[in-house]
Amino acid sequence: MKIYLDCIPCFVRQALEASKMATGDKTTQEKALRKVLSELGKTSLKGKIPSDIAHKIHRIVRKVTGNNDPYKKLKDEYNRKALKLYPNLKRMVARSKDRLLTATKLSIAGNIIDFGPGSEFDLEKTIEEVLVQDFTINHYDRLRRELRKSEKIMYLGDNTGEIVFDRILLEELKGKKITFVVKGGPIINDATIEDAKFAGIDKIAEIKTVSNGEPRTGPERNSKGFINLLKSADVVISKGQGNYEALSEVNANIFFLLKVKCPTIARDIGVKIGGIVVKG
Amino acid sequence: MKIYLDCIPCFVRQALEASKMATGDKTTQEKALRKVLSELGKTSLKGKIPSDIAHKIHRIVRKVTGNNDPYKKLKDEYNRKALKLYPNLKRMVARSKDRLLTATKLSIAGNIIDFGPGSEFDLEKTIEEVLVQDFTINHYDRLRRELRKSEKIMYLGDNTGEIVFDRILLEELKGKKITFVVKGGPIINDATIEDAKFAGIDKIAEIKTVSNGEPRTGPERNSKGFINLLKSADVVISKGQGNYEALSEVNANIFFLLKVKCPTIARDIGVKIGGIVVKG
Repeated sequence: MKIYLDCIPCFVRQALEASKMATGDKTTQEKALRKVLSELGKTSLKGKIPSDIAHKIHRIVRKVTGNNDPYKKLKDEYNRKALKLYPNLKRMVARSKDRLLTATKLSIAGNIIDFGPGSEFDLEKTIEEVLVQDFTINHYDRLRRELRKSEKIMYLGDNTGEIVFDRILLEELKGKKITFVVKGGPIINDATIEDAKFAGIDKIAEIKTVSNGEPRTGPERNSKGFINLLKSADVVISKGQGNYEALSEVNANIFFLLKVKCPTIARDIGVKIGGIVVKG
Repeated sequence: MKIYLDCIPCFVRQALEASKMATGDKTTQEKALRKVLSELGKTSLKGKIPSDIAHKIHRIVRKVTGNNDPYKKLKDEYNRKALKLYPNLKRMVARSKDRLLTATKLSIAGNIIDFGPGSEFDLEKTIEEVLVQDFTINHYDRLRRELRKSEKIMYLGDNTGEIVFDRILLEELKGKKITFVVKGGPIINDATIEDAKFAGIDKIAEIKTVSNGEPRTGPERNSKGFINLLKSADVVISKGQGNYEALSEVNANIFFLLKVKCPTIARDIGVKIGGIVVKG
């Protein structure tokens, strides 16, 4: 998805939120925010995708505040919260008529744990709602068929906490060769290798990383090398808005699983805010 | 009220909205937005009030887009809408037990016609709600007493359309010497001289202007000269968030009448969003 002008005010809000998470010092917060504003003023949007800008601004916030991981505390909190829910989520899958469907829905419910869009959320309520909610874009039957005949699966994770919900879905795909992709360094509340290990995903999948905007953290998601990797998989499951933004125009066997939280993505994908999507 | 860091993302959103109102050309919209971002990057917030920044950014939008009055169409629409409601509003006052209270409440209900905070609104619904809503800050009894014994009243108007509601309140103050203050040039949907005339306020009050950020449009609201003018009035009625931001710390007999629409003002004034305020 190309970047829209509407993404800019949202990135400014995100930069301020990250700065506040990073430091309590208001002078440093203002310094970081103003540096972000100046950088955005210099940056043409032509040919850009949202993560090009996100990488830039969060890198500035990390640098100016000297805090490499502003969302660390929140990330840990949601990892723990989600892991506590894990036994209950497993029971929901076990009791359901269609295990894969329930696991898919739970993985989408977990996508509500997102500190990017700036809206508040209620995790437990979202789980209940999503389980009885219809997909607004529903390519689930095709996903099921594709998964059944697949051997190599790539699964692009999104947020901390959410990846415990992803584990529920991954555990329904036993016997497949799974690669789970996280960020190679911190950005907002996106999951990293550390989080994948905390959620126990390293025991059921190979972990690979993509860039958080810093050097040596992995390839950019829209790089040629990474796209070739996606193409080499039989099925790609892509979680969340960020991965949709980065890969919506890539020609591979990708299924986007997400809960729509941002008005610009809502317009781009043609689904109202709150809608749940399995889009192949 | 001093400016908060939280005002910045909101101003960026406002700049984008104004740019979109000003022109359909996306390249020009991006140009205006990026110029605003660069300018904000250069601007220290120290000692500033929000309108210092608002004036700066809307001036850039007008200049870059070449559109001197981006909200013109919306402004006219709400002037007409409000004027159509006028006979009905008059009947509400006539039928009420306490004419001044009803007129005060209607004037606050009209304050919902505000394209600054970026939230949608329903004018008719707001009128119904406000009439039965309690003031969250309630200095109405003191306002009534002060008005009764006053001769010279200054009334600081806020938005187009809203000033028709102000007329309702002004008409309850017959016999007083009233000065009605509008902007000396367009900014967002703030009322100008033209709007005051459209609403018929020039027939019941002397019209004065304050600056919209352009030269020769009137004094800044927080200038010494204008503050002396406020002090020379027996009572000042100040409508809306912008006037509150500019004058909340001024030592004069000011009553702030507003509906709270922005989270930062809500925090500053200690009232939840949606609350209605008469604060003396």
